[in-house]
Amino acid sequence: MKTSKKININNKNQCEAEILCIGSEILLGNIVNTNSQWIAEQLAILGISHFRQTVVGDNPERLKETILESSNRSQILITTGGLGPTPDDITTKVIADTFNTPLEQRNDILIDLKNKMKNKTSSLSESQKKQSLVPIGAKIIQNYSGTAPGIIWSPKENFTILTFPGVPNELKEMWLKEASKWLVNNFSKKIISSKVLHFAGLSESLLADKIPHLLKAKNPTVATYASTGEVKVRITAKGDNLEEANNFIEPIEKELIQLTGLKCFGVDNTTLEEVVIKLLLHRKETIAVAESCTGGGIGSKLTKIPGSSKIFHGGVIAYNNSIKERILSVPEEIINTHGAVSKPVVESMAIGVHNKFKVNWAISVSGIAGPTGGSKLKPVGLVNFCIKGPKTFITWEEKFGSNKTREDIQKLSVLNALDRLRLSILMES
Amino acid sequence: MKTSKKININNKNQCEAEILCIGSEILLGNIVNTNSQWIAEQLAILGISHFRQTVVGDNPERLKETILESSNRSQILITTGGLGPTPDDITTKVIADTFNTPLEQRNDILIDLKNKMKNKTSSLSESQKKQSLVPIGAKIIQNYSGTAPGIIWSPKENFTILTFPGVPNELKEMWLKEASKWLVNNFSKKIISSKVLHFAGLSESLLADKIPHLLKAKNPTVATYASTGEVKVRITAKGDNLEEANNFIEPIEKELIQLTGLKCFGVDNTTLEEVVIKLLLHRKETIAVAESCTGGGIGSKLTKIPGSSKIFHGGVIAYNNSIKERILSVPEEIINTHGAVSKPVVESMAIGVHNKFKVNWAISVSGIAGPTGGSKLKPVGLVNFCIKGPKTFITWEEKFGSNKTREDIQKLSVLNALDRLRLSILMES
Repeated sequence: MKTSKKININNKNQCEAEILCIGSEILLGNIVNTNSQWIAEQLAILGISHFRQTVVGDNPERLKETILESSNRSQILITTGGLGPTPDDITTKVIADTFNTPLEQRNDILIDLKNKMKNKTSSLSESQKKQSLVPIGAKIIQNYSGTAPGIIWSPKENFTILTFPGVPNELKEMWLKEASKWLVNNFSKKIISSKVLHFAGLSESLLADKIPHLLKAKNPTVATYASTGEVKVRITAKGDNLEEANNFIEPIEKELIQLTGLKCFGVDNTTLEEVVIKLLLHRKETIAVAESCTGGGIGSKLTKIPGSSKIFHGGVIAYNNSIKERILSVPEEIINTHGAVSKPVVESMAIGVHNKFKVNWAISVSGIAGPTGGSKLKPVGLVNFCIKGPKTFITWEEKFGSNKTREDIQKLSVLNALDRLRLSILMES
Repeated sequence: MKTSKKININNKNQCEAEILCIGSEILLGNIVNTNSQWIAEQLAILGISHFRQTVVGDNPERLKETILESSNRSQILITTGGLGPTPDDITTKVIADTFNTPLEQRNDILIDLKNKMKNKTSSLSESQKKQSLVPIGAKIIQNYSGTAPGIIWSPKENFTILTFPGVPNELKEMWLKEASKWLVNNFSKKIISSKVLHFAGLSESLLADKIPHLLKAKNPTVATYASTGEVKVRITAKGDNLEEANNFIEPIEKELIQLTGLKCFGVDNTTLEEVVIKLLLHRKETIAVAESCTGGGIGSKLTKIPGSSKIFHGGVIAYNNSIKERILSVPEEIINTHGAVSKPVVESMAIGVHNKFKVNWAISVSGIAGPTGGSKLKPVGLVNFCIKGPKTFITWEEKFGSNKTREDIQKLSVLNALDRLRLSILMES
């Protein structure tokens, strides 16, 4: 089977895989479908193209329809879910029915199921035995941690189904120990490599307008994604081996960084807080925060990073003006004259925490997160910041927009603060 | 359009909806598709049946094929993604092309886009303007936080497409403010009402063991969901009208609360921080925090609630021991004798912030979030807490388990602190 399959695939221009997750609990919104994402990532690593994901419930007719559709357009169908012992576990039977193939009871699976029983003396129930039925001619994917095995089965020329349980750790183990090797031997052609660049202080459309030629390119492809306070660019290249693929990525990465300068803060899974902590650890410099409208959000982000305790000393959440005055020594007159959301107040807050906490760096923030408390002069979304470092002393103001939610304004304030902190530390280097 | 649609649908036995998420980043395994799960949950609440979810990439041919398939088997297609300004945002154009309908530039959207620009004097770029193009005859779903609006469009008899951006908070806001009402008016038949009860300090299996009879019931149905530090129960009832449906829910809700007592902290979208803030606002009592291992996480949660500024005065992030000593007046001997993660230290931290901040309530936390810093006696996951209120003074210790991630230990600490705070305030009432 293996050899003929390989020849068939190589005759085709492209091998295409689909993912089909089976389970009414996904359709009801009871659980997030993390299996699709994990398998998608694995297919990308193996260099197997994958163009469609589907979810259907535990319904035989709809499942059959979906499998038939897939068999007419793809070469590989990967399913998850519906392999267990309960009546709503219908995947294997429906797959066999779809291609008019009978199920056979496999003795090797029965022995395995028996071995996995806690009480070795009792016998397998009928529902447990159901898991030993597979379409005639199917290869088994052993389930190491759970009971239900998966199958690898080609019911027709140029179409192979691989089934996995819905339990994530069982699926992952079965994939990594058996299925991935089988897929590489039979289907992998080109290796795919990809790299994500992270940007702050830049909008998606502004970035897109700088790189129209890259966004149109075919190998590597370049795509932009935006989320609150951040823009990401993924560069994806195909090559005959990893080195070749990475060689395609390198000049694009260089070009992007050249076009955007310091706005690119990291690659792959890097976060702003991680960059800030690393820079400070490298310089052996300490930091403290003075937070009003973010309420502890900057401190909370920085302390998410393991090892942050070496340089993050803490801070003051100065939400109430009395705390700004009493704990951070902000003069009452400054608050009365300029208002709590003003440059003089954040300056005084930064100086206050810098002195009290005896640190190298201090950052302060005070703003109007809304939904109330805004005015024409000082609208919701107005936020003031100050950074005091060994040589740095800067104050700035952002207007995030009064159409934004309280949550977004707080999140944008935290990210903006971390980004300017990153840039300030870099400037002193 | 509205009336004819309603008649058409009522002639059918069942109205079926599908979800289609568009974005190569999902196929690459770059992000988990949480939008599908959220929409699935919302459709269940509205009582709209939903049998299929699909994901395709930013590819015009495949997208067109998927939309056509869906138009032949469903009445509603809900899409997410691909509405933005970049070249790979192709959803609106492909939908229009699929049904041979031209796009028109909508002036109301252009004005909205212009209003959302930071720099009001500059003009919209061509890529920004793309977001104002919609198929002729489409209704607009306004995007409040982002730029790209969605559409509600019936390209043929008995088939309506609703489009949303891929950014989760934009999608959710647009759904809740506009789309859900439209769906209810046009497609819901039996009214479905549902209520979510939130529980803290209780495991999912413990709760499930208390209510086997409820979990088997058909109308209302009762289902449990667990997430880090919280268990939810959803009660869903069908009725001819809202009152009937709610009448089915009421006795089940009462039974659940009777069985669990104070462990149920709220309904629907209530959060622990909201409950705490409301209780304190009602009592006109102020609060401050002294956080070590949570790094500002409790303050950050409390300040997410609008109006929290009336009673949340702030706090000290006492990450470094020197800050515990200098700012919170924790005696150095106590730290040296008992260690920073100990009952005497959290007691002293709570007293320190209570005195300095002149508040009615103070909560302190100190623990080992890991991954390093644990010992046999004090393992990763060990966290100490103290609450000092008008009459309350309690200290306790939690062992969240050294197998937990740093992120989970911090999150569990914040939720545990908020829940005990809630119970303490209730006890004083």
